[in-house]
Amino acid sequence: MVQDCDGYVIGVDLGGTNLKAGALLSDGEILYRTATPSRVDEGRDSTVRTIIAAIEEVRSRVEGGRLAGVGIGIAGAVKQREGIVVQAPNLPGWEGFSIVGALSEAVPCPVFIDNDANLFTLGEGWSGAARESANFCCLTLGTGVGGGLVLDGKLWHGVDGTAGEVGHIVVEPDGIECPCGGRGCLEMYASATAIVRMAVEEGVKGTLTTDELARRAREGEEQCGALFSRAARYLGIGMTDLVNLLNIDMIVCGGGLAGSSDLFLDEARREMVERSFAIPGERVKVVTAELGSEGGMVGAAFLALQSGERDG
Amino acid sequence: MVQDCDGYVIGVDLGGTNLKAGALLSDGEILYRTATPSRVDEGRDSTVRTIIAAIEEVRSRVEGGRLAGVGIGIAGAVKQREGIVVQAPNLPGWEGFSIVGALSEAVPCPVFIDNDANLFTLGEGWSGAARESANFCCLTLGTGVGGGLVLDGKLWHGVDGTAGEVGHIVVEPDGIECPCGGRGCLEMYASATAIVRMAVEEGVKGTLTTDELARRAREGEEQCGALFSRAARYLGIGMTDLVNLLNIDMIVCGGGLAGSSDLFLDEARREMVERSFAIPGERVKVVTAELGSEGGMVGAAFLALQSGERDG
Repeated sequence: MVQDCDGYVIGVDLGGTNLKAGALLSDGEILYRTATPSRVDEGRDSTVRTIIAAIEEVRSRVEGGRLAGVGIGIAGAVKQREGIVVQAPNLPGWEGFSIVGALSEAVPCPVFIDNDANLFTLGEGWSGAARESANFCCLTLGTGVGGGLVLDGKLWHGVDGTAGEVGHIVVEPDGIECPCGGRGCLEMYASATAIVRMAVEEGVKGTLTTDELARRAREGEEQCGALFSRAARYLGIGMTDLVNLLNIDMIVCGGGLAGSSDLFLDEARREMVERSFAIPGERVKVVTAELGSEGGMVGAAFLALQSGERDG
Repeated sequence: MVQDCDGYVIGVDLGGTNLKAGALLSDGEILYRTATPSRVDEGRDSTVRTIIAAIEEVRSRVEGGRLAGVGIGIAGAVKQREGIVVQAPNLPGWEGFSIVGALSEAVPCPVFIDNDANLFTLGEGWSGAARESANFCCLTLGTGVGGGLVLDGKLWHGVDGTAGEVGHIVVEPDGIECPCGGRGCLEMYASATAIVRMAVEEGVKGTLTTDELARRAREGEEQCGALFSRAARYLGIGMTDLVNLLNIDMIVCGGGLAGSSDLFLDEARREMVERSFAIPGERVKVVTAELGSEGGMVGAAFLALQSGERDG
């Protein structure tokens, strides 16, 4: 797609806790990577300085080659074209902020932004689990449930750039209230947070982390296994909506909870196949993400490559 | 889009009960229209003869002008490119049938097919309620709930051509079994059939048709009004999924039940706005279809125009 790019790009993944940055070639090879706390508590300017420092660190470690572009994934809703952050609960002070404008002096190349879950999706499509697919959905099962849609080879942003909120498909009409303002959203049943909440509700004793609950489920503790089964069922319902509505050929599950996918992904797929129309339900592959925690950074790099190619 | 087409096209809407056909100009003007029973009980060949007779009737009534193409909407799943019907519960004997092949000798121009709900969607986008929108969803609320998606100005077919099954979004995880094999599908709560079933469940007396129930609801019978409110709530949940996932700018409701949209559409919209993310939820217009029972036929004509332009 951008094979003739003669330089390299930098991808930055800005989360509420950590910032990851890396230099990548147009074939996906990672030349250098770094990570640092994103310092959102110290205010926006401090985080911007952290971004600039990370970019400079990466540049200084890459010998030769032209920096063709920088892509940044933001944990929030953004206006891609304007380079503005619209909504970002985990980045206090960033609403309405033009991060692209703020970086223009310090960074000697075009800067592009998108939502972090969208860039995770782009990353998996470029060099991860969905590299053979042009029509797929990624879900990030972590603190919440994020997602992104690729249709006909392109990220589907929707009219305002807010599309792809797979975590806010309604799976239980009278369900638990969701921070989004809705009720019974997938995120309330199939995130790491949801697993822990359900463990509390069920009176599970001991250390209530998803890793620990997963370990106990694998060792045969039924009460722990049931938590993952419940998440699987709701995940299967959300997948049914995706499949019946969009007839995509792949669903990729990433995020922290995907590390325990052995406990729920096959079950979620069975639930989906049982509920979906036969042709699209049997067609769709359900797999785990391949890029792990680097997916967002890789996707941010791809955004820079793709956008640079399109614009120039 | 196809303003320089120098002839006319014919749209055919083949349902399980009726067949509608019409001749249209490239600006959407209907030159002639006809309707006849589709005779599916007399077997497939009889229906094919009915289609050919309708096309010949339309042609004989249009003076001058070249017939540029014929589009046919089929009540079922089809392979658009191959011209083959894949699945059609209401057209016995049509599975695997190449309707395009069967018409090739009798019809002196290219023939194109698609699913009827997709063509209804295309029709509303061409000259109906969504003519200003490039990103919308149509729902047909009738015996079942059908639908179609237009994304970026094009019908979204999905990988196998089965996309757009809005009626089979899951709105009640442990809900009523659906003929599709799933459970709790929107179709089970927001179709005309569902309204009547709920009336029976609630012990409503009298003539149980949706028109009659709607009349009584308008006259203030609470038990009847509650049926439409229940449908509205589930319709709002389905719309929430569309809005959060796709960030489209319009949802168009057609089909027989849309004649009673005064009883449920505002309520469905409120339910959706309350549950959805603010930006896409407030953005999306929720409206009734404008082409009534001619939507499918108009869309079939547009398919012929659009495909003719693309292919030739």
